[in-house]
Amino acid sequence: MIKVAVDAMGGDNAPVEIVKGAVEAVKELDVKVVLVGISDVINKELAKYSYDKDRISVVNATEVIGTDESPTVAIRRKKDSSMVVGLKLVKEGEVSAFVSAGSTGALLTGAILHVGRIEGIERPALGTKLATKKGYSLLIDSGSNVDCKPKYLEQFAKMGSVYVENVIGIKDPKVAIVNIGAEKEKGNALTKETYELLENSDLNFVGNIEARDLPNGDVNVVVCDGFVGNVILKFSEGLGLTLLKIVKETITEGIYKFAAAMLKTPFKAIKKRFDPDEIGGAAFLGVKALVVKAHGSSKSKAIKNAIKQCEIFVENDIVKKIEQKIQN
Amino acid sequence: MIKVAVDAMGGDNAPVEIVKGAVEAVKELDVKVVLVGISDVINKELAKYSYDKDRISVVNATEVIGTDESPTVAIRRKKDSSMVVGLKLVKEGEVSAFVSAGSTGALLTGAILHVGRIEGIERPALGTKLATKKGYSLLIDSGSNVDCKPKYLEQFAKMGSVYVENVIGIKDPKVAIVNIGAEKEKGNALTKETYELLENSDLNFVGNIEARDLPNGDVNVVVCDGFVGNVILKFSEGLGLTLLKIVKETITEGIYKFAAAMLKTPFKAIKKRFDPDEIGGAAFLGVKALVVKAHGSSKSKAIKNAIKQCEIFVENDIVKKIEQKIQN
Repeated sequence: MIKVAVDAMGGDNAPVEIVKGAVEAVKELDVKVVLVGISDVINKELAKYSYDKDRISVVNATEVIGTDESPTVAIRRKKDSSMVVGLKLVKEGEVSAFVSAGSTGALLTGAILHVGRIEGIERPALGTKLATKKGYSLLIDSGSNVDCKPKYLEQFAKMGSVYVENVIGIKDPKVAIVNIGAEKEKGNALTKETYELLENSDLNFVGNIEARDLPNGDVNVVVCDGFVGNVILKFSEGLGLTLLKIVKETITEGIYKFAAAMLKTPFKAIKKRFDPDEIGGAAFLGVKALVVKAHGSSKSKAIKNAIKQCEIFVENDIVKKIEQKIQN
Repeated sequence: MIKVAVDAMGGDNAPVEIVKGAVEAVKELDVKVVLVGISDVINKELAKYSYDKDRISVVNATEVIGTDESPTVAIRRKKDSSMVVGLKLVKEGEVSAFVSAGSTGALLTGAILHVGRIEGIERPALGTKLATKKGYSLLIDSGSNVDCKPKYLEQFAKMGSVYVENVIGIKDPKVAIVNIGAEKEKGNALTKETYELLENSDLNFVGNIEARDLPNGDVNVVVCDGFVGNVILKFSEGLGLTLLKIVKETITEGIYKFAAAMLKTPFKAIKKRFDPDEIGGAAFLGVKALVVKAHGSSKSKAIKNAIKQCEIFVENDIVKKIEQKIQN
């Protein structure tokens, strides 16, 4: 049974939904959870539930890092924050993974500082599953490095390939760069130089992909800088849910009401694919231990699913496999 | 009756669909069209249709600029291309507007070189309507300047405001920067500096907007660099249409078939909102005459709608109003 540390103070709905998610996790999954944060607050929340006491423990941390703080300053100063304490637990091997719904910037900075990068990795990056017609593509970087160099993107492509091959189980995954045109000479300085690097790599590089074609899911690893990746990820969530709402509103009016009633079940299934809470967490690929970022607005279900993701990452030994790929 | 020049050789479906679109335009709209390109080819296409011969004329241009050519080289060398000849027609006032579905980069370069920037404008930009829950937001730059400076984005915001106020008719439109977080300190170097500039402008600047919130349509002018803008625009088209397809496929299976049949009409209406052909064209804001970019994959309907857009732009004297705003 793996042990996962969870930042009880991170995210818009902390600590209530985080603690609830931890309780749900130990009920449904084969895991132990260590809740990190202000212990009085956590224990008060835990008191609301009945659960196997052997499966949830609390580690006290007196400080909290907010999303409005400078990541570098906060990580350096708040040494007793739930985030720093949690990162140290995973670094020291006390737990197999650390999950936080707190500030992405702080988590990246903290992971680099307190867990450390895999040797040879310039920048760790967030790899997130992006819903497509066929299932999911891996979008990397989906939000941690807003200003990137071509070399970083090349490494994102390598780490993403390892992820897809091992976690999703697709051999020799297709890699593409998000660009404004399919041709090699299209794009900005970053995409043009990255194209050269990937063309000469041992990856299954298939060229540029226009954003219009992303939903088709023909490519397995979608590479971009963290700004563009964040825009794609967030826009996908927003547009997916809005569009379903429009469809629903349209057909629940007047004469379509009867049809709408029949469609409740299929609609739920589609909505599920665009619901970020279903995916739960994204791994920070490129650090020496397993650090998973949960959505800032995570509710209990998202936290539970992020913990579930950790199980899969640990099982597939994703950290070690990235290490091997990069050092080869 | 306004006269619009159309690049008969530009776009994936040229010349067939372009010529067809011109014929549809003179039948449905109060316009005259000048088709620019290899006259033999154009005349052969025109011979397929019956239409008012006084309303369509042909201007010969012997060269064609492809999407795979370097914009700067192509525009400088191919002086007798349909694009350069068309741009000269609008520059010299022979026509009120020029529409092309050809290479965006070449059209931008050509518009700057042969039509000229409005005094004070650093970079012209494409302003495109982005479908939202409430209607449309103006996305600027939606694909012409892939590497931008903060000053450019400030001007995009000004030009976009003039557009929305005059073309869409919303007074004091809300302006926001696309960013990876709502807080002022979030983002990359470009968004942070642009924030400062817009905060100190006379625009109705409402701060950063996350991509997730774009579909809500709470903001009227959405400012970003052309790379990010292109990703948003294309992704919106792709995801919108894919999602509707998924919904349709799901509900036309088995027991939902009856419901699906009832929903044909509302579905068509929703699809229309995400169909780039319905919007037709985007204006290159910031040049001295009206240059309109149609989608590269434009079919006849898109060309007709781009010509229709020209009518609205001319009626509202958008070029002059931008000139006034920038020089104030």
